[in-house]
Amino acid sequence: MHAHGYATHSATGELGPFDLERREPRPQDVAIDILYCGICHSDIHSARNEWGNTHYPFVPGHEIVGRVAAVGNEVTRFKAGDLVGVGCLVDSCGTCSACNDGLEQYCEHGWTGTYGSEDKIGGTPHTHTLGGYSDRITVAEHFVLRIPENLDPAASAPLLCAGITTYSPLRHWKIGAGQKVGVIGLGGLGHMGVKFARAMGAHVVMITTSPGKSADAQKLGAHEVLISKDEAAMQAAQDSFDFLLNTIPVGHDVDPYMNLLKRDGAMVIVGSVEPLTRVNGVPLIRKRRSLAGSLIGGLPETQEMLDFCGEHGITCDIEMIDIKNVNTAYDRTVKGDVKYRFVIDMATLKAATQ
Amino acid sequence: MHAHGYATHSATGELGPFDLERREPRPQDVAIDILYCGICHSDIHSARNEWGNTHYPFVPGHEIVGRVAAVGNEVTRFKAGDLVGVGCLVDSCGTCSACNDGLEQYCEHGWTGTYGSEDKIGGTPHTHTLGGYSDRITVAEHFVLRIPENLDPAASAPLLCAGITTYSPLRHWKIGAGQKVGVIGLGGLGHMGVKFARAMGAHVVMITTSPGKSADAQKLGAHEVLISKDEAAMQAAQDSFDFLLNTIPVGHDVDPYMNLLKRDGAMVIVGSVEPLTRVNGVPLIRKRRSLAGSLIGGLPETQEMLDFCGEHGITCDIEMIDIKNVNTAYDRTVKGDVKYRFVIDMATLKAATQ
Repeated sequence: MHAHGYATHSATGELGPFDLERREPRPQDVAIDILYCGICHSDIHSARNEWGNTHYPFVPGHEIVGRVAAVGNEVTRFKAGDLVGVGCLVDSCGTCSACNDGLEQYCEHGWTGTYGSEDKIGGTPHTHTLGGYSDRITVAEHFVLRIPENLDPAASAPLLCAGITTYSPLRHWKIGAGQKVGVIGLGGLGHMGVKFARAMGAHVVMITTSPGKSADAQKLGAHEVLISKDEAAMQAAQDSFDFLLNTIPVGHDVDPYMNLLKRDGAMVIVGSVEPLTRVNGVPLIRKRRSLAGSLIGGLPETQEMLDFCGEHGITCDIEMIDIKNVNTAYDRTVKGDVKYRFVIDMATLKAATQ
Repeated sequence: MHAHGYATHSATGELGPFDLERREPRPQDVAIDILYCGICHSDIHSARNEWGNTHYPFVPGHEIVGRVAAVGNEVTRFKAGDLVGVGCLVDSCGTCSACNDGLEQYCEHGWTGTYGSEDKIGGTPHTHTLGGYSDRITVAEHFVLRIPENLDPAASAPLLCAGITTYSPLRHWKIGAGQKVGVIGLGGLGHMGVKFARAMGAHVVMITTSPGKSADAQKLGAHEVLISKDEAAMQAAQDSFDFLLNTIPVGHDVDPYMNLLKRDGAMVIVGSVEPLTRVNGVPLIRKRRSLAGSLIGGLPETQEMLDFCGEHGITCDIEMIDIKNVNTAYDRTVKGDVKYRFVIDMATLKAATQ
């Protein structure tokens, strides 16, 4: 099945038009016409081979929303025309304890990412999976999600990664009414963390280095803003938080944040894929605090998150772009110059690839 | 009430005989004749002012076992002659949520340590509490623990700190049968961690840098020994542990240990009071692992631990010393040259102070 997309051919190259193949749908597959695809910071890290494991040509994109074009004859949950999403995963072993628990993101045999992973299913000339900066994709039904029809499809695309990445830890650590939750960092992840924590009933504090972000944070649903460079304010807030969602994307000193937690509080890292620059055992020991991590979410929980968004009318704040501007959008994302996620309008692909 | 003890008068001085006062028992107090006192590494840090907050003259000791000499008329749980213990705490606010939960070690208004803390009760010329390297002590009933009579009193002394420090996290993280638990580091804390984890029904692995400690670890109850410098063995053990009790007393790279944990596993720091030299977010994120800390234990749990020891016949492996050799014992403790805890025989104090 021929498809058009945008790919890069080297760590330093730009993204440009690329012809690719998608597999013919197997009985358990769903063929999707892609309408929108979000730009995640991981797309950029991978396109530029910053994690050292990128195969070229490389097509990014794992925040995919589209309409079902066709389904295999074993598919029961979807039919042509349905509004669907595909997130970070398109395959996993299906047999390990993580997969059995619906936590495919922790598959013990290694899940297949929507882009850049070895394609164990095959059926195309490509050895590695190619992502959603493309007009179509074929995905096994188990990895296809239903997007509530009441949500804006474009603004729903980043729910598939930024959304579930922040929703899952809030659910796993049982966030709800009566709890004080801090969301550290106001970007693609942080703005969703604020929306979800607020919708779950928590008292939400945006914790940011930038006083300039206060008004936006409150507009997104934060009850308060704590400026992390204000030492007196940080001191006054010590021992007061039940939970901290840490979306800072780079290595940093976690100790000042750790001291904000109450006894038995947890801070969960979802953004930092670099070594933390400082972690002291004492703030952990002194109040039995935890520093944890969390990775996206499994398929059942991702569907739960989308349904939650449908009920609460939650989508991402996005800036829609023409795919021909994707390279500029990458540069702006790296600079944090986006409120809060770029989404590619895939209808622009046809003009860009002709 | 006059008492004899051993004190140091400066960070560089040695411990030597010292006359002190204990308060006359209030109605709620228990007066104790001290029989034994363990030597904890914290005693040494404090005696040498390595944490920068020591007041001199300084009497260390918070692993105290003795017999009740007299009780105030409101004391209900103890009578003269009872075998009792005093651990790290002798006072707390009694009103905060931590104290209400029986977690006095996390008292929100600051607990009073058995030594080196401001003495809020008073009744002596000393502004700060003086510890258990002494022949007697007066302690509020709430902070006095019952030592099971079937246990060796001397070998029970270190249960009051090394014991509860390792027991409490094993209980809090619900360790039991069917779980694989690693105890990192074989010293005063680690040897108790092995005994407790074994008695709780877990499969216990001693994780140590020293192949020479294997036989001892197995004698203490470890089912297996994992040498942390053996990269192939560490690799083979990845993703296999439910829980890690980390007793390493100094800053260290936690990543190699973190990778040993299964999904949702926790590593709990109980020894390191220095900044950890390396913590990477990725091992946390990749398997939703936690790095936590834990501080001694509250009074109810410390009594539970002592009762557990009585039922299971658990005490510490100790080397008993004459108090006049305490300075040598400090040097040996710093070098790790003790199996596994020094305990001072307080009967030797009289000869040493005459």
